[in-house]
Amino acid sequence: MLGNLIGERFMALNFGESHGRCVGTVVDGCPAGLPLDESFIQKKLDLRKPGQSVVTTQRKEDDKVEILSGVFQRRTNGGPICMLIWNKDQDSRPYEQIRTIPRPGHSDYPASVKYGGYADYRGGGRFSGRLTATFVMAGAVAERLLKVALGVDTVAYAVAIGKIKARHIDFTSALKYRYENEVRCPDTDAAGKMKEAILAAKKKGDSIGGIIECVTNRLPVGLGEPLFSSLESDISRALFGIPSVKAVEFGSGFYGCTIAGSENNDTYVLENGSVVTRTNNSGGILGGLSTGMPLVIRIGFKPPSSIAQAQETLDLSSGKQAKLKVPGRHDPCVVPRAPPVVEGIVSLILADHAIRHGLISSSHLGVKRNS
Amino acid sequence: MLGNLIGERFMALNFGESHGRCVGTVVDGCPAGLPLDESFIQKKLDLRKPGQSVVTTQRKEDDKVEILSGVFQRRTNGGPICMLIWNKDQDSRPYEQIRTIPRPGHSDYPASVKYGGYADYRGGGRFSGRLTATFVMAGAVAERLLKVALGVDTVAYAVAIGKIKARHIDFTSALKYRYENEVRCPDTDAAGKMKEAILAAKKKGDSIGGIIECVTNRLPVGLGEPLFSSLESDISRALFGIPSVKAVEFGSGFYGCTIAGSENNDTYVLENGSVVTRTNNSGGILGGLSTGMPLVIRIGFKPPSSIAQAQETLDLSSGKQAKLKVPGRHDPCVVPRAPPVVEGIVSLILADHAIRHGLISSSHLGVKRNS
Amino acid sequence: MLGNLIGERFMALNFGESHGRCVGTVVDGCPAGLPLDESFIQKKLDLRKPGQSVVTTQRKEDDKVEILSGVFQRRTNGGPICMLIWNKDQDSRPYEQIRTIPRPGHSDYPASVKYGGYADYRGGGRFSGRLTATFVMAGAVAERLLKVALGVDTVAYAVAIGKIKARHIDFTSALKYRYENEVRCPDTDAAGKMKEAILAAKKKGDSIGGIIECVTNRLPVGLGEPLFSSLESDISRALFGIPSVKAVEFGSGFYGCTIAGSENNDTYVLENGSVVTRTNNSGGILGGLSTGMPLVIRIGFKPPSSIAQAQETLDLSSGKQAKLKVPGRHDPCVVPRAPPVVEGIVSLILADHAIRHGLISSSHLGVKRNS
Amino acid sequence: MLGNLIGERFMALNFGESHGRCVGTVVDGCPAGLPLDESFIQKKLDLRKPGQSVVTTQRKEDDKVEILSGVFQRRTNGGPICMLIWNKDQDSRPYEQIRTIPRPGHSDYPASVKYGGYADYRGGGRFSGRLTATFVMAGAVAERLLKVALGVDTVAYAVAIGKIKARHIDFTSALKYRYENEVRCPDTDAAGKMKEAILAAKKKGDSIGGIIECVTNRLPVGLGEPLFSSLESDISRALFGIPSVKAVEFGSGFYGCTIAGSENNDTYVLENGSVVTRTNNSGGILGGLSTGMPLVIRIGFKPPSSIAQAQETLDLSSGKQAKLKVPGRHDPCVVPRAPPVVEGIVSLILADHAIRHGLISSSHLGVKRNS
Repeated sequence: MLGNLIGERFMALNFGESHGRCVGTVVDGCPAGLPLDESFIQKKLDLRKPGQSVVTTQRKEDDKVEILSGVFQRRTNGGPICMLIWNKDQDSRPYEQIRTIPRPGHSDYPASVKYGGYADYRGGGRFSGRLTATFVMAGAVAERLLKVALGVDTVAYAVAIGKIKARHIDFTSALKYRYENEVRCPDTDAAGKMKEAILAAKKKGDSIGGIIECVTNRLPVGLGEPLFSSLESDISRALFGIPSVKAVEFGSGFYGCTIAGSENNDTYVLENGSVVTRTNNSGGILGGLSTGMPLVIRIGFKPPSSIAQAQETLDLSSGKQAKLKVPGRHDPCVVPRAPPVVEGIVSLILADHAIRHGLISSSHLGVKRNS
Repeated sequence: MLGNLIGERFMALNFGESHGRCVGTVVDGCPAGLPLDESFIQKKLDLRKPGQSVVTTQRKEDDKVEILSGVFQRRTNGGPICMLIWNKDQDSRPYEQIRTIPRPGHSDYPASVKYGGYADYRGGGRFSGRLTATFVMAGAVAERLLKVALGVDTVAYAVAIGKIKARHIDFTSALKYRYENEVRCPDTDAAGKMKEAILAAKKKGDSIGGIIECVTNRLPVGLGEPLFSSLESDISRALFGIPSVKAVEFGSGFYGCTIAGSENNDTYVLENGSVVTRTNNSGGILGGLSTGMPLVIRIGFKPPSSIAQAQETLDLSSGKQAKLKVPGRHDPCVVPRAPPVVEGIVSLILADHAIRHGLISSSHLGVKRNS
Repeated sequence: MLGNLIGERFMALNFGESHGRCVGTVVDGCPAGLPLDESFIQKKLDLRKPGQSVVTTQRKEDDKVEILSGVFQRRTNGGPICMLIWNKDQDSRPYEQIRTIPRPGHSDYPASVKYGGYADYRGGGRFSGRLTATFVMAGAVAERLLKVALGVDTVAYAVAIGKIKARHIDFTSALKYRYENEVRCPDTDAAGKMKEAILAAKKKGDSIGGIIECVTNRLPVGLGEPLFSSLESDISRALFGIPSVKAVEFGSGFYGCTIAGSENNDTYVLENGSVVTRTNNSGGILGGLSTGMPLVIRIGFKPPSSIAQAQETLDLSSGKQAKLKVPGRHDPCVVPRAPPVVEGIVSLILADHAIRHGLISSSHLGVKRNS
Repeated sequence: MLGNLIGERFMALNFGESHGRCVGTVVDGCPAGLPLDESFIQKKLDLRKPGQSVVTTQRKEDDKVEILSGVFQRRTNGGPICMLIWNKDQDSRPYEQIRTIPRPGHSDYPASVKYGGYADYRGGGRFSGRLTATFVMAGAVAERLLKVALGVDTVAYAVAIGKIKARHIDFTSALKYRYENEVRCPDTDAAGKMKEAILAAKKKGDSIGGIIECVTNRLPVGLGEPLFSSLESDISRALFGIPSVKAVEFGSGFYGCTIAGSENNDTYVLENGSVVTRTNNSGGILGGLSTGMPLVIRIGFKPPSSIAQAQETLDLSSGKQAKLKVPGRHDPCVVPRAPPVVEGIVSLILADHAIRHGLISSSHLGVKRNS
C-alpha cells in the first residue's frame, strides 16, 4: 500500500493538492446503515478551518464538504464514500521561487529530488497542512461510527504551547470545553498564557510548537493486534502522517521511562464489577491491546516552518546562499487547529480495529448475520 | 495484514511463543544474490541474548539461529528466508497462576479477554520480549542488504537510564564503541552511573526504564512516502511493535515543540558539493522524506513490568485483591539488550523503503534489468 | 484491503454508484512526469460508452472524464490522480420493485442480505456494469505509462459471441482494426455473423454472451511474482472484478489440458538474438513469470442478466413466485463494449508489476536516482 | 504484499525449496480455540503425497508435518501457526544442466533472468509443485475452521483427464467417494478410462492434463466483496498460484458464454423456507457474493512439463539448439494428486472471507465478545 492510504478494513485514501482543484478522500469499509450527511462532517471541518481566530492564519477558506458517493437516503450504503472540498482560487505565483530556493523545514528539497521536479510545489502541494482537512472528513465518519456502534468518544486538546503547560485535564471537562477558547486548552489559565505566547511569536514573525493530548473512553478490552498492529503501532503510524508531528507517546510516555517499575505498573482492582487499574500509566494499552481504561496519547507538533522572517537558505540553481521570505499567510502555531485532525485520525484507527475484531460488523449496522 | 507482519516489499512475519518449540521469522522480499549465512545473524543475536552481563537477566539461553530456507550456496536465492531459534526446555509451571491473577503492566488481562483464555500464557507467550529475537534475525538481513547495496549504517545506543542521561554522542564513536560496555552507552562516564542505577533497582527487586537513540547515516535523499508511509510513520509503527516501547520522537522531538520556528528550522548549505543542513533538528526527515542528513530517532522503554517484589493485583477468579510474585528471572532494565533490536527494526523499514523506491532492485543484486 | 481497491504499487480505488452523483477512481502510485490529460482517457472512455451502435444499449451517456488531482502542467505530479464522470439524471423509480423482487442473475438478493437492505439498489448501485467506466479511466493511465516507459501495447477484441467464433487473429491486425466494427472483432466475416447473433437475441428480448481475447506484446522477461502474485493470479483477480466475467484462461487454457505434454510444451529457439519459443501455448507465462512472448488471455463474459422478457422470480416480501420485467434499457451483449475495459484492467496489473520490479521507477519518469 | 503470501485476515506465507531443508508455511489469523493437531493435517498431506499409486510419480516421500508454533494444549492459541515438512536428501546433481539449458514448459528461463542466476534451480526450487504441500497444510487449518464454525465442506475431484470426461457428479457422492480410486474421479467408469489414459501417456514417456471440479456447500449468503475481492477474484488468484493451473471458470463458465441470458439466469424459488435457485449456472456467486447455493469451480491443469522423452531446447551458453532429458521422476498427470491442494486453497480463501465478514470471530471460537 502506498502512503496516501491508511487503515485496512476501514480505510481512507486521500487525494488533492493545496492549490489544485480540490482536496478529498475516499473512505472504504464503513458498514452500511450508518446515519450520515454533510452536516456532521462540516461541523468537524469548521473546527479546523483557517481564519477562525486571532491565533490562526488570517487566510479565509470556506471548506465546504461535498459527499459524492457512498451515502444513500442519508445512510451509508456499504460502498466507498468519496468526499471533497473544492479549493478556491489561490495565488500561486509567489511559490515560483521555491522551485529552486527550498524553504527551511519544508519538504521542498527532498520532494524535488524524489519527484524529479514534477511535484506540484504550489502551497506545498501534497505536503501541505491543507491535506489534514481530508483526515478530518474521513475521521468524522469513523467518529460517528464509533459513537453509534460502541458509544466511544475521542477528545483532543492542547496541553502545551511553547513553554506553557496546562495542568491535568479530566475527560469530562475536555469533552465539554475543549473548543471553548481559541487555543483549545480546557485549562483556562494556561489557555490565556498560550494565546499570549502565540501572539508574541506572531508579532516577531516567528512561530511556536506545542503538544496535544488525546483521550478515548469506553474502548472495549482486547482491541489491537500484537505485535506490529498494536494500538501504539497503528495509531503512531497514523499520527505521524500529520505534517509537523515529530513525537508521540502513550500513557506515562518518556516520563515513565525515568521511573521504577514498581511505580509505573498499574494495579488491577474491581470497580462496579469491572476490571480497572488504579493508575493509568499504560495509557490504556498493555501488550498493544486495549485494557478498557482510557486511551491516552500525547503528540508533539513542531513550530510551523513557514515564518514571516526572512531566512537563510541555499539557492539550488546558483549553489549560493540566499535570503528567502516564505510566501503565503501562515499559522503561527498549528496546535489550535489540530484537535479535530487528531480526533479524526485516532478515531479512524480505532474504527478500523473495531471492525477487524468483529466488534462492529463489516457489512451493516443492523442485526448481525449468522447470530 | 495482521500484526505479526511488518514491511511491504521487504517484509517479515514472526512466529513462535516464549515457551513453545521455537521463535522464528520468515523474511520475504530480499533480492537474490546477497551474501548471507548464519554467522552474521548470530553475531547480532549474541548482542541481544540474555545472561550476558550483571545488568541483564541471569537466564542463560544459547539462541543459535538456523536458516531453513531462502539461502543457496551462501547467497539469498530470492525466496522467503525462514530462520528460527529452538527454545530450550523452560520451567512453565510457575506461570499457571497468571491464568487468573494477571501481572500488573503485562498483557495477561487484555490477552485473556481477546483470546478467550486460549492464548499461551507461559512466559508471556506471544507477548514475551523473547519475540524480539525474531526482529533481530529479520533485521540482520535488512542491515546486511543496506550495507552491501547502499553503504548505510544504523547504530543504536543508550542515552538515558532512569534519571541518568548521556552527553551528546557522535556517530563515529557510536559505531565503534556502542557495544563496549554492558549498558551500551558510548559515554563512559554516564555508562558507569547507568550500570549503578540498574544494579540499585535490581537490588531492590525493582526495575528501571531508559531511552535509546538510533542514528542512520548515508541515506539517499527522498526515501519515504507521503503521508502515512512517511519515514516517521513506518518507523514508529515498527518500533512500537517492540514490547515496552511507549514513546518515539524524531530529531528535536518533544523539545523542538517548545522552541520557535526560527530556531528549529535547519538552514540549507552546500558542503563538498552536497546539499546539507547546518543543524539537524528535523532528524533527517522533512515531509516524511529523507533529507540526506542522518536519521535520528529516540525511543523510550518503560521499566520492565516483571519485578521481583510482591505486587498487589486482582484475582479474577475470586474478584479479590491478591499478592503476586511474578515468576521467572527477568531483566531489571531492557535497554542494555535493546540496541540490536532497534538497529534491526529500523533497518528493516529502511530496506523496505529502499526497495519500494527502486534504489535496491527487488529481484537480484546484480546489474539492473532494463538499464 | 477491501475489494474496491486493485494493485499494490500502482493502484486504483473506485467509488460511486450507477444512479448516484458520479462514478470515479483514485489512481495512486503513478510516477511523476507522465504526460497526461483528459483527452487520452476520454478516447478510451468513448470506446466503452453506451449508445454507440445498434448492438449496444440505446441509453445515451456522455461520460465526460474530469481529472480532479494528480496532474500538474499536463504531467502527473506523483500524487493520487482522482478522476470522475458525473452521472446524468437517471430514472430510478422503476428500480423500486427490485428491493423485494430480486432480478435473476443479478446481485440483488445476496447484496440485500449482505448490506442489510441499505445498499443503493438503483440501477444495480455498486454492482452495475457502469463501474467498469472507472476501470477504463484507471487503466488508461496504466496503458499510457506502459507505452511511454516500456513500449508495451495491450489489445483486446471479441473472438466469440454466442456460438460464433472468430478465426485466429494476429497482433498487428488486432492493434489496427479491433475498433473498426461494432462487435470489436477484427475477423470481418465472423464480425458480421456476431452482429446478426446479437441483433437476433435483442429481437427476442434476450441476451447473449461471448469471449474476449487480450494480447500484450513486448513485455520484459521476468515480470510476476511466484506464487500468488503470478501474472495469472493477479490478472485473473482483476478480470473477475468485471461484472459478468465467469471464466479466464491463459495460453492454450482449457484446451491445453486435453493434450499431451510433448505437444503443449513450447520449444525455445534463438531469433534475432532473442530467446523466444516456437509456439506460445504458455500464453507468455511460465512459473507465473513473463517469458518475453506475447501474453495471451481469454475471458468469458456471460450473457447479460437483464433481459427484456418477463422472468419468473421470487417475491421476498410475500414468499411467492412473481413475474418480473427488468427495468431500464440494457445491452443485449456486453462484449462489444468490453475491450477497453479489459485493456485497462490488464494494463493496470502489468504497470503495477513493472513498478514492483523496478522496471519503471516508482517516483518519476526522468533519470533514475542513484544510478 | 509479495506473492508468497495469500489471504488477508486468515493468511498463509509459504517458504522452502524443493531440494532445500524443508517446505513450510506460517498461517496467521486463525482464531484461538480451534482443536488442531498434526493428525488432521497429515491425513490431507497423505492424499497429496507422491508414490501413492501407479498413476503418480514413483518417488517416495514421507511428508510428515510438524507444527512448530501456534498450537497450545491441542488448540490454536491465536498466534501464527508455523508448520513444515523436512525434505529428505535428494539427488540434485542432474539439475546442474538446467542452469544453462532451460526445460521447455518450466520457469527455468524467466526465473534465471529475474533472479540473476541466484535462484535455487534444484528440482525447480521455489517453482516446484512440491510447494503445493504447503498449500495443503495451510488449507487444512482453514478447512477445519470452516467445518467447526460453519459446517462447510469443500470437495474437489477429477472431471476430465486428457479427452476423457466424467458424467455429472453429485455433492454427496463426491464427499464420500472422491478418494476411492487412484484418479480421484467419483464416476467409476470414467475413472477406469482416465487411469488408462494416464498409463498410456506414461508409457510413451509423455504426460497428460485434466480438469478438477471443486464444490463447497452450506456457504452463508453474502460472502465476498465487490469488486476485486469478489469470490471469483480471490479464489482465482489463489488457484492460479498452483503451478500448472492455466484456466479457471465458475458455474456454467465458458459454456455459459455461448448460451442466451434467458437460459443462463437462475430462477429464485423458496425451498424449505430458504431462498434457492432452480439451476445453479452462477456457480453460487452473483455480483461476486455467495448466493447460498453450492460454490462451483472448474480448474484446468496443463500436462506436466517434465516428460521422459528427450526434448529440443536452447542451450543458453552456446546459443545452439540442444536435446534435453529432464532429470528426476515425475508425475505423468498432476490431477490425481491435486484434489487436496484445491480443497485447501479454496478453503483458505473462504475462511479468510468468513473472518473478514465477521461470520467467524477473528479472535477466538468461544462466545463472541460484546454480543
